[in-house]
Amino acid sequence: MAASSSLFSSSMHREMLAPKTSKCPQNFVCCHSKISYMEPNYLKQVCCPNSRFLSMNMSSKWEQMDRRDAFHCRALKTERAPTFSVGQKFQLNDIIEAQQFDRDILSAIFEVAQDMENVEKDSPDNQLLKGYLMATLFYEPSTRTRLSFESAMRRLGGEVLTTENAREFSSAAKGETLEDTIRTIEGYSDIIVMRHFESGAARRAAATSDIPIINAGDGPGQHPTQALLDVYTIQREIGKIDGIKVGLVGDLANGRTVRSLAYLLAKFKDVKIYFVSPDVVKMKDDIKDYLTSKGVEWEESSDLVEVASECDVVYQTRIQKERFGERIDLYEKARGKYVVNQGILNVMQRHAVVMHPLPRLDEITVDVDADPRAAYFRQAKYGLYIRMALLKLLLVGW
Amino acid sequence: MAASSSLFSSSMHREMLAPKTSKCPQNFVCCHSKISYMEPNYLKQVCCPNSRFLSMNMSSKWEQMDRRDAFHCRALKTERAPTFSVGQKFQLNDIIEAQQFDRDILSAIFEVAQDMENVEKDSPDNQLLKGYLMATLFYEPSTRTRLSFESAMRRLGGEVLTTENAREFSSAAKGETLEDTIRTIEGYSDIIVMRHFESGAARRAAATSDIPIINAGDGPGQHPTQALLDVYTIQREIGKIDGIKVGLVGDLANGRTVRSLAYLLAKFKDVKIYFVSPDVVKMKDDIKDYLTSKGVEWEESSDLVEVASECDVVYQTRIQKERFGERIDLYEKARGKYVVNQGILNVMQRHAVVMHPLPRLDEITVDVDADPRAAYFRQAKYGLYIRMALLKLLLVGW
Amino acid sequence: MAASSSLFSSSMHREMLAPKTSKCPQNFVCCHSKISYMEPNYLKQVCCPNSRFLSMNMSSKWEQMDRRDAFHCRALKTERAPTFSVGQKFQLNDIIEAQQFDRDILSAIFEVAQDMENVEKDSPDNQLLKGYLMATLFYEPSTRTRLSFESAMRRLGGEVLTTENAREFSSAAKGETLEDTIRTIEGYSDIIVMRHFESGAARRAAATSDIPIINAGDGPGQHPTQALLDVYTIQREIGKIDGIKVGLVGDLANGRTVRSLAYLLAKFKDVKIYFVSPDVVKMKDDIKDYLTSKGVEWEESSDLVEVASECDVVYQTRIQKERFGERIDLYEKARGKYVVNQGILNVMQRHAVVMHPLPRLDEITVDVDADPRAAYFRQAKYGLYIRMALLKLLLVGW
Repeated sequence: MAASSSLFSSSMHREMLAPKTSKCPQNFVCCHSKISYMEPNYLKQVCCPNSRFLSMNMSSKWEQMDRRDAFHCRALKTERAPTFSVGQKFQLNDIIEAQQFDRDILSAIFEVAQDMENVEKDSPDNQLLKGYLMATLFYEPSTRTRLSFESAMRRLGGEVLTTENAREFSSAAKGETLEDTIRTIEGYSDIIVMRHFESGAARRAAATSDIPIINAGDGPGQHPTQALLDVYTIQREIGKIDGIKVGLVGDLANGRTVRSLAYLLAKFKDVKIYFVSPDVVKMKDDIKDYLTSKGVEWEESSDLVEVASECDVVYQTRIQKERFGERIDLYEKARGKYVVNQGILNVMQRHAVVMHPLPRLDEITVDVDADPRAAYFRQAKYGLYIRMALLKLLLVGW
Repeated sequence: MAASSSLFSSSMHREMLAPKTSKCPQNFVCCHSKISYMEPNYLKQVCCPNSRFLSMNMSSKWEQMDRRDAFHCRALKTERAPTFSVGQKFQLNDIIEAQQFDRDILSAIFEVAQDMENVEKDSPDNQLLKGYLMATLFYEPSTRTRLSFESAMRRLGGEVLTTENAREFSSAAKGETLEDTIRTIEGYSDIIVMRHFESGAARRAAATSDIPIINAGDGPGQHPTQALLDVYTIQREIGKIDGIKVGLVGDLANGRTVRSLAYLLAKFKDVKIYFVSPDVVKMKDDIKDYLTSKGVEWEESSDLVEVASECDVVYQTRIQKERFGERIDLYEKARGKYVVNQGILNVMQRHAVVMHPLPRLDEITVDVDADPRAAYFRQAKYGLYIRMALLKLLLVGW
Repeated sequence: MAASSSLFSSSMHREMLAPKTSKCPQNFVCCHSKISYMEPNYLKQVCCPNSRFLSMNMSSKWEQMDRRDAFHCRALKTERAPTFSVGQKFQLNDIIEAQQFDRDILSAIFEVAQDMENVEKDSPDNQLLKGYLMATLFYEPSTRTRLSFESAMRRLGGEVLTTENAREFSSAAKGETLEDTIRTIEGYSDIIVMRHFESGAARRAAATSDIPIINAGDGPGQHPTQALLDVYTIQREIGKIDGIKVGLVGDLANGRTVRSLAYLLAKFKDVKIYFVSPDVVKMKDDIKDYLTSKGVEWEESSDLVEVASECDVVYQTRIQKERFGERIDLYEKARGKYVVNQGILNVMQRHAVVMHPLPRLDEITVDVDADPRAAYFRQAKYGLYIRMALLKLLLVGW
């Protein structure tokens, strides 16, 4: 569609190019050229697909949006100046995958997350999302992730529509497509947090939806808010990310957590990564090649004690029994190989931390919990702040 | 019970005759004679059964109600005058079946629903139901309907208690009667939205309950809010209902949606209805006879193209596979016979619309979605406004 | 840990000894010696286990708590004086079992519960818990209990995170311990209401958690809020508990309700208890011995008519079919033996009441419902007030 300076075309343009939560359409004519996060072979254009034009014929909707924009443009003048460029805001239409974040975006999100740590029962921020409605559309259960998002929304005064098991209950069972479900749910809510069993489902939902989509895990695909909270935990616990040494331990083949974390760490300077895992669940070559291409130093090791003594962060993960099928013998052998216990704590530096995405079985012994360096329950709490920050950013902007 | 002019008897009388959300008892002495929606063989008396007397012995409750009434009577004086008679309000104790609505009631509800389209995050109306609590008691899952009601309640500032699968979870599994469950839940909430697997369950619940019941579908029985939103969609999309031509397409034998819609359309003037369906799922004679008795013109046709070119509304429905049992061959044959696609759009008039209760499979092809005349996702949104209107009407009145 | 008068040690001390919702740390130095509810063999120390020290290293948390305490201490000065001693408040860290309540605590809770009966949509109290978040963590379904708690929380302006079937859905399925789950959920909420299938689970949760735990039933173990509401119902319906006669009827062997009730009644003066049950489900000796040791008069009877004519309260219970396994013949024989019907009502005194924990099958005939002495649905409503009172007491104090 050709550019135009007329008011109506400007509105149309906005619908195509602007973020779902854009405050001021005129900002966005220029922002399209500033997209900085697209790395070749990692991210296709996810914003503003053709399907967003479907709403063109709803004239009353157009009118509402114009009215709202007028209001927001006025409001904007009195807000504090954003600390970075419009082009970066553009990317927070949806949260689909870890790859969409660059270093500047991460810093900006972390700044908001840290503000969120101060939201108290009596602070004004706790009504920041009053009147907004979040739908949690979970096609497979994940109580922990769902409660974290619902808590985040409620801590900011927003409301929640819950679907705990959409796969079994919803019209999906009658054969409805994901796209049709999204078109319906977006009529009932202001933002959708979606968990799905198929890789790529979140991207499909985002392509259909007029409201923001947050990917809360899509099958073997992505779980970007987990990746963000892991990096945020390092930032908060160690105080920096540049120059740190991180040991990734456990199931490195199947854990999407460690893969996303390795990817994000590559955006920082002088990071060194150690891989410590049983032979059957080693880190795959794609991530190793990626790290090498980015100039990130990495090393495989079978000596957890030595790695633990070197690292700022020991990131332990659960060996995923469900991936071993009938080879229970292989699982049992892999499972007990690298355990974080008092012995590991004894060699770790005083400022270092143990992280874990949870749930944990016995790959970290319970006597570790009482040590100040056991950061995994704090890590879960940091996830709350990250999700509060993302909800704020997607719904009311920076 | 004999009429009486004493204060106490007046209160008793109210409990028998007055709507559950009555504002001013003295209005209702006269209203009992004005019930206008009872058509022979269609509706038995649903209001104020004997079981409502059960609460007589709770003196504190009586006192509370008297206090509230006094408050409401005062408040009433400053409200805008109602646009129609008390007798009609009387019917909105509960929403049980499409038959309870006459033309005037429909107009009045639609007027409120249109107001609801303007409820925004910052408008005062969005706190209209603050402090009210809605229980969704779903004995069979229906994510779409449940979320629509929960969104409606929350958009008006109300709160929600959710039961996603009451059949499996609740004390129903231990053999508790529906009546006992309702007596318990009404102690926890201000209104109950109920989905049940048995026809007539909603009526039984309403007969027991002191608080309003909304039937969100009772088995093969009724789904009155779907019927209301269908008629409201026609009103909003076409601008009128008198004089329109409607093509009902697909599974006319099993779809309670099209049956209820045909029933409600008969209340308007000069409506013409076309039935287009595979032979195995034709519209049953009871509805045809009813339409004839009401002087509504109707016609069966096997030519969807011709019907589509004539009609203001093409109402497509899904062939319900679950009704065919083992006769998959019959299902497959019926399924592909009448599909709304680009060819159908080509013959439809410019102002006409395609409707569908959703979920849809392939009886409407996805390329139709982008056409402004594809009204089915807007239809889902209109359902939200209808439900907001009903919740307002049942809880705080006109 | 040694006592100390320094500020920092005082804070530490509080974390160990003070209630989870303590308002003013200096009050609690003295309270530890006042614990009055510990009866030998009934209650081990449940408060302040070592695991609570785990949060010591979270300095930001400490700072937050100090700030909050400062605020609360100021607020406290303007509050009405508490009507009983600090030592009793101490016990309301968690609600774990009926044994933790003595007579004074019960009176105090009932006083708050009666205040709760007056919370209306327009009263200021209905925002008492605004900004607080309750998580319902149900490892086995109990719709009735869950809705009662969620209604209570919402009636006071609080928010709710729901897990309807934590056992199947949560990371428990992956082998996570209850303790780890609690450590995560407590990061998302301010209070946890837990239902579990294992006896003792609530106590384990309370030992781990920094926020209050309410036991909403742990397997064959305890269901303390049911016990409280039963006694509260007697108080409200009869007007006193000292000197009353109570007939416990039905399944006395398996019903934890009647066992807890018998236990609590023993705390009052001149109570007489009748046991009326089929031979296969008689009251066990432990409770009989306990009553004897407390000087409570009790008697077994097979004549329900005579007992009903004597008693202030006839407490009927359901014969639990699920306990009979394959001996359906024994169940059928036990089931019809003692039924509360019109005949029983005829001999009951005018002020007496029939109670039942619900759900009921046919052990109370439905024609009894209309009698003012049928208190069982009011009993469910009293449960709401008790739960409102407990939530208030645990979250904001007396």
